[in-house]
Amino acid sequence: MKPKYAVILSNVGSCSDRFVADGYGPPYTIEELFARVAQIPQVTGVELVGTWHVTESNVAELKGLLEHYELQLVSIIPDHFGQMKWKHGSFAAKDPAMRNAAVAHTKEMIDAAVELGGNLISLWPGQDGYDYLFQADYIQERDWFAEGVKEVSRYRSDVRISLEYKIKEPRTHSYLSTAANALLIAQETGSDNVGVTIDFGHALNAYETPADSVALLKKYGNKLFHVHMNDNYRHWDDDMIVGSVHTIETLEFFYWLKRTQYDGWLSIDQYPYREDGLEAVREGVNAMEAFVKLADSIPEEQIERMFRHGNSPEITAYLRKLLVSSI
Amino acid sequence: MKPKYAVILSNVGSCSDRFVADGYGPPYTIEELFARVAQIPQVTGVELVGTWHVTESNVAELKGLLEHYELQLVSIIPDHFGQMKWKHGSFAAKDPAMRNAAVAHTKEMIDAAVELGGNLISLWPGQDGYDYLFQADYIQERDWFAEGVKEVSRYRSDVRISLEYKIKEPRTHSYLSTAANALLIAQETGSDNVGVTIDFGHALNAYETPADSVALLKKYGNKLFHVHMNDNYRHWDDDMIVGSVHTIETLEFFYWLKRTQYDGWLSIDQYPYREDGLEAVREGVNAMEAFVKLADSIPEEQIERMFRHGNSPEITAYLRKLLVSSI
Amino acid sequence: MKPKYAVILSNVGSCSDRFVADGYGPPYTIEELFARVAQIPQVTGVELVGTWHVTESNVAELKGLLEHYELQLVSIIPDHFGQMKWKHGSFAAKDPAMRNAAVAHTKEMIDAAVELGGNLISLWPGQDGYDYLFQADYIQERDWFAEGVKEVSRYRSDVRISLEYKIKEPRTHSYLSTAANALLIAQETGSDNVGVTIDFGHALNAYETPADSVALLKKYGNKLFHVHMNDNYRHWDDDMIVGSVHTIETLEFFYWLKRTQYDGWLSIDQYPYREDGLEAVREGVNAMEAFVKLADSIPEEQIERMFRHGNSPEITAYLRKLLVSSI
Amino acid sequence: MKPKYAVILSNVGSCSDRFVADGYGPPYTIEELFARVAQIPQVTGVELVGTWHVTESNVAELKGLLEHYELQLVSIIPDHFGQMKWKHGSFAAKDPAMRNAAVAHTKEMIDAAVELGGNLISLWPGQDGYDYLFQADYIQERDWFAEGVKEVSRYRSDVRISLEYKIKEPRTHSYLSTAANALLIAQETGSDNVGVTIDFGHALNAYETPADSVALLKKYGNKLFHVHMNDNYRHWDDDMIVGSVHTIETLEFFYWLKRTQYDGWLSIDQYPYREDGLEAVREGVNAMEAFVKLADSIPEEQIERMFRHGNSPEITAYLRKLLVSSI
Repeated sequence: MKPKYAVILSNVGSCSDRFVADGYGPPYTIEELFARVAQIPQVTGVELVGTWHVTESNVAELKGLLEHYELQLVSIIPDHFGQMKWKHGSFAAKDPAMRNAAVAHTKEMIDAAVELGGNLISLWPGQDGYDYLFQADYIQERDWFAEGVKEVSRYRSDVRISLEYKIKEPRTHSYLSTAANALLIAQETGSDNVGVTIDFGHALNAYETPADSVALLKKYGNKLFHVHMNDNYRHWDDDMIVGSVHTIETLEFFYWLKRTQYDGWLSIDQYPYREDGLEAVREGVNAMEAFVKLADSIPEEQIERMFRHGNSPEITAYLRKLLVSSI
Repeated sequence: MKPKYAVILSNVGSCSDRFVADGYGPPYTIEELFARVAQIPQVTGVELVGTWHVTESNVAELKGLLEHYELQLVSIIPDHFGQMKWKHGSFAAKDPAMRNAAVAHTKEMIDAAVELGGNLISLWPGQDGYDYLFQADYIQERDWFAEGVKEVSRYRSDVRISLEYKIKEPRTHSYLSTAANALLIAQETGSDNVGVTIDFGHALNAYETPADSVALLKKYGNKLFHVHMNDNYRHWDDDMIVGSVHTIETLEFFYWLKRTQYDGWLSIDQYPYREDGLEAVREGVNAMEAFVKLADSIPEEQIERMFRHGNSPEITAYLRKLLVSSI
Repeated sequence: MKPKYAVILSNVGSCSDRFVADGYGPPYTIEELFARVAQIPQVTGVELVGTWHVTESNVAELKGLLEHYELQLVSIIPDHFGQMKWKHGSFAAKDPAMRNAAVAHTKEMIDAAVELGGNLISLWPGQDGYDYLFQADYIQERDWFAEGVKEVSRYRSDVRISLEYKIKEPRTHSYLSTAANALLIAQETGSDNVGVTIDFGHALNAYETPADSVALLKKYGNKLFHVHMNDNYRHWDDDMIVGSVHTIETLEFFYWLKRTQYDGWLSIDQYPYREDGLEAVREGVNAMEAFVKLADSIPEEQIERMFRHGNSPEITAYLRKLLVSSI
Repeated sequence: MKPKYAVILSNVGSCSDRFVADGYGPPYTIEELFARVAQIPQVTGVELVGTWHVTESNVAELKGLLEHYELQLVSIIPDHFGQMKWKHGSFAAKDPAMRNAAVAHTKEMIDAAVELGGNLISLWPGQDGYDYLFQADYIQERDWFAEGVKEVSRYRSDVRISLEYKIKEPRTHSYLSTAANALLIAQETGSDNVGVTIDFGHALNAYETPADSVALLKKYGNKLFHVHMNDNYRHWDDDMIVGSVHTIETLEFFYWLKRTQYDGWLSIDQYPYREDGLEAVREGVNAMEAFVKLADSIPEEQIERMFRHGNSPEITAYLRKLLVSSI
């Protein structure tokens, strides 16, 4: 596997939560964030977020920063989640004006991405869903959602639209909830340039085995377009440093990326509430690199043996020797 | 809504768990189970389980019992989960002999169902999945799974094959895990007679809103073929009495069955570990009847208003008045 | 039961999350928040949060507002969670200066509470815990935590200190995690004026049955000092409107408050991300009132019968008739 | 740390679940189980289960087997969960005859343990709890529970009674649910010989960090009496092979056993549904041994540094180098 490492720009900065709205750390300018990313040697690409980083007026400036820091634009994540106006949804909002706004903003971000040398939009419509029972006409709103995605996918066929699923948060229930659900929506659009982003932690939250999610997307049309990496304790999107909780799931995930010839980016998506963002990303990237190497080192015949027999004491013994001991 | 009530035959009997393998109550003969079902006036149909109830040699006897007790055969649930031999899977087993056995048994049960006047197979391949990481070639095994389902679906086009998804148990991870996943598999078979069973509790376990699962299956091809009812505390398939935990989810579920013109059976699937099975089913059916009536009583304009505005204080007030008070 | 209804002042305003740090709605001044609370007829008390509402300089102003709007001060919740400075903890922080600051701020809030006619401090040290494995000397930090609580409890014996437990968030793991854990800490202080706050949703998050938590606190020293009401989907502290998800758990909870002669406040603790805060609180209070009445209406002999037999079909039938139908 | 390895006798055999009541593998006689345990070189002790292994009439035979196979009796786990008669509880049963039976059986098992050279009873009253809301007088039943434990603890002060907590299963809710809850009950008995068993998987199920549970029991009276090892995916007691899922939690757990000078047994408690029980236990023991060594190898100054700073990028880097790479 020839990995390409990236990071969402804001990850090297500070972040807030509902109790500390002002942020757990100092704010950084966009230029400072770029300068921080540039300190991590393995990182060659960066993801930008609409509104937070990309506005109508700063594309030229961003172009300069990308060039100056020798970073590629990996994707733009349009802002369908970060402003009060999206609180009732974006593509699936009840208000047609908001649905139109969601589409329009995405098209702008597609243009910006192309302008910045990119060809990927990572779509995370986190506000599309519902909180309360009896709050939504699920069919109608799912239809709207797919129509919006279809429309933006038809805007430019040379830009890929990658759907990042998440089972909940900020809504108690999301429409774009699981890998299988994302595949249904991608199929519904009928557009070849629509695929799926696996966020490692989101997969865990949906009780998916992340490696199995890679396989599922391979099986149903080679639809894994992008990867976001982090870790958590399964019940919530804690957005912790890669590999800090799930050693074996992380290893199996990177193995399956290799097995399925994934050739996209490996991008950090962490929330460093109490950490220095730069140090957290640096260690996240080091972890990705270490797991990639370890996954690469497993002989294929060993894999085939484990898959053929499925004998768990043997599998556990192999992994123990690999990770913990040579006993 | 014109509901038709049914029950899985074993539900009126006793059951066991891993600690009390001998069962929490006395065993019943098949005839006794029929006689018990017949004591519940609203129930007009029954589901039978392969091996447990249906064998190669007792179809004629079962036919007699169905006629004698004036019960319709709702479905047969082939046995892909209840014997030691399935421990490594059925349709997705690594051993081709087991995969063949899974298909062969299903065909036998299809024949038996037709013989008994039925036209539905409720397929729950609970042993198809994996327990440990690195234990399975997910793509290969998912392929085998879909091939097996496809093959049995082609056996008789006048018998519907309904896939009952469940996110885990008895395996720690199932292949047929969620409503969306079941839809992908149904599509993959290319057979119109393949659809999906929603088990209310399984939907909760996958963090689905059961009413939303009804909507999803409607949207993607009108694929809700069958319903199993019970309740639980979300984290595990506790198989409790209908409505004993989730009042509002249950109400919303029955509303959406009506809204989507579901015309199949409403079938009890409870595990009465410490209850008398007959009394537990009787109350489960009473609950279904009560929720159906209550769902029917909600004026459509009220629903439309809630869906259009999505205003949660208003929705909560309406439901409170409906369920708790007239304050 | 003679209920006294209250609300945390910020609940009638707007709130933010990690994606919309600027807030999902318009900001309100403290006076506006008071004016909004005053529009809910049943509410006679208010809880104030340190820093957010209570500062060194505004106690006199707050006194005027309480008088003007004829509201009692129910409690002050000191700020141990809402500023960047608490990011590594308060009572259990590794830095002794922060531990001292946590104690000092609590004492100030005790003084302010007395000045405002109150006698209850609701302590929610949400930042005390850990995120990563190997990050903490659990014994040392738990010792510090208990010492701090002990110190503030000795400051004024006529003010009650009520510990609000929560299993996680904002840390991935809290020290003050469950009802039983809170009891151990309360015992450790050796102070009679230390008790426990049940937040209904926090109890659900810890897989407690909220009514059982009431019983546990009664059994071990009559230690239920305060109640926060809301609802959620069990897995996370969604802080939804009272009764919007869990009908039966909510009913059972109010029944046990009555059974154990709880005579404290019933206080709303909701987060109205996408709702109008005033309307959400109004409906939350209406729900509390309705559930209190319904709980009061259950004949004691019915309760005793259910507890004595524990027969679930009978219990389910009774609750169905109470809530859904008279079938 | 000088570890002593043990196993629950039935672990090297076969097991069943609610779908395959006849068992997933062949049955073994008690003597065969002993012979299988004896094949694992590191194992020097064995735990026996009441009814399953220990009856009124076979104590002499068991004594012979222990001697012949040179195994120590680690504990007896009385049967309060494995027969139909316990279905409504044991120490907390509504029926006083059952409560008396629970106490009487425990005393018999205490006598048997002493006769067999043991001094530990591992009490797992798994049927004590409730399934449905409004099913129990929680205070009354919790009182009965503590009274029963107190009575058996007074029977012989030279035998330790260790309470194994578990948040659910087989009941949907257990009384002996968490480490903190177990401590409250132990305190309530007023008996020094009552302590707590941590089952690693049960701790995960209650969203405890297992190492933190060790610390909690140390802090509140040095009450960790016994350890059961296995692993799972957090949501359910999957009883998998040690270390097969949670690498870092397992390492931290063994580190804290060492830090708190735990000198009891490390005993396997796995359910080998689809594995050969002997091979699964052998690998579980190998894993324990490997983790003990790795935990021993971490320099104390490294630990102190991590605890003092709590700096997660640094901690993650250290653990990555230890487990995954030397990058």
